[in-house]
Amino acid sequence: MQAEFINPFLNAAINVVQTIAQLKVATGKPYLKQDNKAFGAVTGVIGMSGTNVTGNMVISFEEKAILKVVSNMLFEEFTVVNDSVIDAVGEITNMICGGAKSQLAELGLNIGMASPVMLVGVGIELSQLSKTPIVVIPFDVEVGKFVVEANISVDKSKK
Amino acid sequence: MQAEFINPFLNAAINVVQTIAQLKVATGKPYLKQDNKAFGAVTGVIGMSGTNVTGNMVISFEEKAILKVVSNMLFEEFTVVNDSVIDAVGEITNMICGGAKSQLAELGLNIGMASPVMLVGVGIELSQLSKTPIVVIPFDVEVGKFVVEANISVDKSKK
Repeated sequence: MQAEFINPFLNAAINVVQTIAQLKVATGKPYLKQDNKAFGAVTGVIGMSGTNVTGNMVISFEEKAILKVVSNMLFEEFTVVNDSVIDAVGEITNMICGGAKSQLAELGLNIGMASPVMLVGVGIELSQLSKTPIVVIPFDVEVGKFVVEANISVDKSKK
Repeated sequence: MQAEFINPFLNAAINVVQTIAQLKVATGKPYLKQDNKAFGAVTGVIGMSGTNVTGNMVISFEEKAILKVVSNMLFEEFTVVNDSVIDAVGEITNMICGGAKSQLAELGLNIGMASPVMLVGVGIELSQLSKTPIVVIPFDVEVGKFVVEANISVDKSKK
């Protein structure tokens, strides 16, 4: 994945989480994904496709982090991962990918977004058919961590 | 999801599995998904998006079924779910969704396909943000079962 495509996801994740959860979001150094596991306890996956583009964005939260984010987002304290929390992860997945989509469009990359799928469980074995390297962007929201993983393949032979 | 959109997935699944694995594929009666669990032991997920369409296709195989399908497909006996089997599930996901895509286009529905994500594990908790009912199509390949689950939302306000 081209480096210029990383920032849209990074910026969108910070913007969305700060806005909905009023939390300070610290960003770590992006790295290439080496394993086939979901990072956290609740994970959102959204497919992306366009004329010459395919990919996925995965967001995965440690349990403490998502409970805090959703508690702040919905003005109600959540202490377990229930349906409201899972749906909120889907909404957050949509919002971040939507934010990245707008910024990618400014770089000339037009993607369509599928609808989010949410996975619950620690250590879920998750892999991708695409051989495009997956970039992992780590974030820290005071009480816990989350990651956004993005991979985009651009087929330059198509317009 | 409109009933007419079910047959493209049903036909494509039969056609792909019979072709690649030379197995007789029996089809059960489609039903609406009631739980939030992956059906089988290895699962492929692919996002779909278009101008006025979003959705996902999920295919999930019992372990015995996928080992037989991939053994036949790759002319080599597989007895455990390894990377080759997982990648084959991704390829099968792509092929079935691609087959459905062609037939959906004939019905006037143009979808773009993301790239497949594969999940390994029994009973994985998997849900979708979309409130469109998910249609489950059950199949039987002599040695085991698999399902194709499809949900497509069409926004008629967009063209």
